[in-house]
Amino acid sequence: MSRLDEFESYRSKMNDRIGEIDHLGIKRFYNLDTNAYHDAALDGKTKELLGLVASMVLRCNDCIDYHILQCVHAGWSDAELFDAFNVALVVGGSIVIPHLRYAVESLDLAREK
Amino acid sequence: MSRLDEFESYRSKMNDRIGEIDHLGIKRFYNLDTNAYHDAALDGKTKELLGLVASMVLRCNDCIDYHILQCVHAGWSDAELFDAFNVALVVGGSIVIPHLRYAVESLDLAREK
Amino acid sequence: MSRLDEFESYRSKMNDRIGEIDHLGIKRFYNLDTNAYHDAALDGKTKELLGLVASMVLRCNDCIDYHILQCVHAGWSDAELFDAFNVALVVGGSIVIPHLRYAVESLDLAREK
Amino acid sequence: MSRLDEFESYRSKMNDRIGEIDHLGIKRFYNLDTNAYHDAALDGKTKELLGLVASMVLRCNDCIDYHILQCVHAGWSDAELFDAFNVALVVGGSIVIPHLRYAVESLDLAREK
Amino acid sequence: MSRLDEFESYRSKMNDRIGEIDHLGIKRFYNLDTNAYHDAALDGKTKELLGLVASMVLRCNDCIDYHILQCVHAGWSDAELFDAFNVALVVGGSIVIPHLRYAVESLDLAREK
Amino acid sequence: MSRLDEFESYRSKMNDRIGEIDHLGIKRFYNLDTNAYHDAALDGKTKELLGLVASMVLRCNDCIDYHILQCVHAGWSDAELFDAFNVALVVGGSIVIPHLRYAVESLDLAREK
Repeated sequence: MSRLDEFESYRSKMNDRIGEIDHLGIKRFYNLDTNAYHDAALDGKTKELLGLVASMVLRCNDCIDYHILQCVHAGWSDAELFDAFNVALVVGGSIVIPHLRYAVESLDLAREK
Repeated sequence: MSRLDEFESYRSKMNDRIGEIDHLGIKRFYNLDTNAYHDAALDGKTKELLGLVASMVLRCNDCIDYHILQCVHAGWSDAELFDAFNVALVVGGSIVIPHLRYAVESLDLAREK
Repeated sequence: MSRLDEFESYRSKMNDRIGEIDHLGIKRFYNLDTNAYHDAALDGKTKELLGLVASMVLRCNDCIDYHILQCVHAGWSDAELFDAFNVALVVGGSIVIPHLRYAVESLDLAREK
Repeated sequence: MSRLDEFESYRSKMNDRIGEIDHLGIKRFYNLDTNAYHDAALDGKTKELLGLVASMVLRCNDCIDYHILQCVHAGWSDAELFDAFNVALVVGGSIVIPHLRYAVESLDLAREK
Repeated sequence: MSRLDEFESYRSKMNDRIGEIDHLGIKRFYNLDTNAYHDAALDGKTKELLGLVASMVLRCNDCIDYHILQCVHAGWSDAELFDAFNVALVVGGSIVIPHLRYAVESLDLAREK
Repeated sequence: MSRLDEFESYRSKMNDRIGEIDHLGIKRFYNLDTNAYHDAALDGKTKELLGLVASMVLRCNDCIDYHILQCVHAGWSDAELFDAFNVALVVGGSIVIPHLRYAVESLDLAREK
C-alpha cells in the first residue's frame, strides 16, 4: 500500500469518526468545503488547482495529497501541474521545497494507481 | 488617488530603489517571480488566479492588490473572482475575512480605473 | 472617531457590500462563523476568548479588534483578558508583541466606549 | 504503545536532553510556558483550552497532543472539546481539517488511557 | 516625523502601558526577549541579524523596523543587510516582497537619522 | 540508518526526480536558493545560521535538518547553535518547542556522523 493509499484510508476512517460526532458546525463546514470545489462561475477543475496551490503555500502535506488526487482526476496534465508547483514555489519560497518533493512523489504515485 | 493607486505608486518607487541596490540574487528573484506568471503549460490568466488565491490564504494585502489588478487585466469576471475568493475563504478560514473585505474593495477600485 | 470605531464602520460597510454579491458559499461561511460563537456545549463567552487568542497567535489585527469588542461585551475583565494575552504571547512568541500592543490599546479604547 | 504514548516518551526524552544543555534562556522559556497555564485571573482549565485552540489554528500536531492530554486531565468533556475544535476549524479553515482528524484520534486515545 | 520615528514613539508608549499592567508572565517574556539578543556564545550583533531575518520571513513590519534599527546600531553595513534580505526573500518567497520594500525603506530612514 | 541519513537519501532521490522534470522556473529557483548561501557581503557561515533560524520559526523540520547539517559543516559550535535555537524559540514562541526538540536531536545525530 503506497503512502497515498494509507492517507486515503486514514482520511476516510477519521472522517467517518468525525461524522459520528455529529457536530452541526463541523458537518456544515465539511459541506461548505465540498461545495467550494463544484462547478460554478469557475469550473471545478480550475478550483482544484487553486486548492492545490493554496495547500502548497500553506505547507500542508495531507491537503497536497488530497488535491493532487483531485487534480489528476480532473484531468490536469503533469506539465500543467509542474507549472502550478512553480507558482507555489515562487510565492512561498524555499520553505516550500520539502512540500514540492512531497507533491512530486504524490503525483507519481497518483499516476501509478 | 485611491489606495490602489497609492499602492502602485509606492510599489513602483520602492522597486526602483531595490533595482538601484543591484543585488544579483534579489534581481534574479524578481525575474523568476515575473516569469512564473507567463504563458507556459498553464496560461498566464490561470496563473494569476493561482497567485491571487495564494496571496489571500497567506493574508498579504499588497500581494492581493497586485494580483487583483493582474486578474482584472487578464480578463477574469467578478463572478469568477468571487468564486476564487470563496475557495480562499474556505481553505484559510475566518482569519481570511478581513482580507476578503480588502480584496472586494480592491476589485471595486480596479473596476473604476 | 477612534480607530476601533473606524474598524467597525469599515467592517460594516464592506460586509454589506459582500452581502450584495450574494455568493452562496460566502454567505454560508459567514453564518457558520457567527454560529461557532453561540452558546452550545461551551458557552459563547468562553468561545469568544478562544477566538481572541486564535486571532492573536495568527496575528490578525482586525480579528483582534472584533474579538476584543465581543469579549468586553461578554463580560471578561481586564485581568482575565491580560491572562489570555499572556497565553497568546507565550504560544506565539515575540512576533506577537506588536499585536499585544495593539490588543491592549484596543481594549483601552473599548472600555472608553 | 499508542502514538500518544510515543509522543509522551519522545517529548520527555528530548526535554531531558534540552535540560542537560542548561541554556539559561531556554530554561526560562520553559518555565514561562509552564506558568502561563497555572490558575490566575483565568483558571488553568480555561487556559488549557486556549492553548489547544491556538495549537490547532497554528497546525502543530505535537502541541495538539500535549494540550489534548492537559484538557482531558483538566476535566473538559468531549462535547466541550468538539465545540473548541469547531472554533479552531472556522477560524483556521479547511487547512485545519487534517489536524482536526488528528485531534479527534488523539482525544479517543487519551480517553482509552 | 518619519514612520520609523512614529513606530518608536508608539512602541514606547504602548510598552509603558503594558508595563503598568504589571502582569508577571508578560514582564518575564519581555525580559527573556531582551536577553535573547545579548552577547553570549553568539555575539549580540549576529543575533540581531537572526532576529531581522526571522521577522522578515514571518512578515512582521513592526518587528522589521525594530531589528533594522538594532542592526544599524550594531554596525551591519547596507551590503551585509541586503544579503540578509536576500536570504529572507529566498526562504520566504515572493510573499516577502512587500516586506522587502518596507525593510529597504526602513533602512534608508534609519541611515538618515 | 539514522533519520538524518534517511532525510538526506530521500532529499537526494526526489531532487534528482525534480531535475528530470526539467522545469526552467524550478531549476532557476534551486540555483537561486543555492547561491543565496554563498560567501558575499555576508559569509556563507553566517547565512547558514540565518537559514536555520528562519527554518525554525517557520517550523519546517526538513529545512531544519538541511541547515543543521550545513551549520555543522560550516563550523558552528553547539553553544553557538543553542544560542541561535534560543532566538528562534523567543521569536516563534512555544509552538517552536517541538521543532527545538527535533533540532537538538538532529544536531546530536549530525555530530555522530
